[in-house]
Amino acid sequence: MQKPPIYLKAVTLKNISEVSEIKKDAKKEMIIILRVTPLAHKDVEQLRKAIDDLYKYVQSSGGDIARLGEERVVITPPSVKIWKGI
Amino acid sequence: MQKPPIYLKAVTLKNISEVSEIKKDAKKEMIIILRVTPLAHKDVEQLRKAIDDLYKYVQSSGGDIARLGEERVVITPPSVKIWKGI
Repeated sequence: MQKPPIYLKAVTLKNISEVSEIKKDAKKEMIIILRVTPLAHKDVEQLRKAIDDLYKYVQSSGGDIARLGEERVVITPPSVKIWKGI
Repeated sequence: MQKPPIYLKAVTLKNISEVSEIKKDAKKEMIIILRVTPLAHKDVEQLRKAIDDLYKYVQSSGGDIARLGEERVVITPPSVKIWKGI
């Protein structure tokens, strides 16, 4: 039997309250490409907290996280590793 | 036995000649996040050809491809689907 596919989802972070929703998706083995600029333009301190929270979640879950340019952050489940030769 | 991880790789497209290298990575079951703006600024016609080539490759291989904002294109292997509710 084939494994169910992994999903890749592009989402926008406008508010720190959306972090729990992102973690829920991450728990479902989703790859999340998060556009962080809307929150960055609104409240840099909230963005820092949101990213910090996501880093901690990823570290505890065995996933991976990396910055993608100025605008985005990628979060992966344990089955997907981010190539660090970039 | 655990399946080997899928890799996610961020690459920059500067020249149409790099398309074959990208297809090689795609064949290795990699997820590729391709920054296309450097080629777009140099030669829009070459970018159109490169993207067309990659779309055809993805269609024939059973993978998935989607635009990610103005700057990037995501290419996935058959085991990873791009969430279209975006």
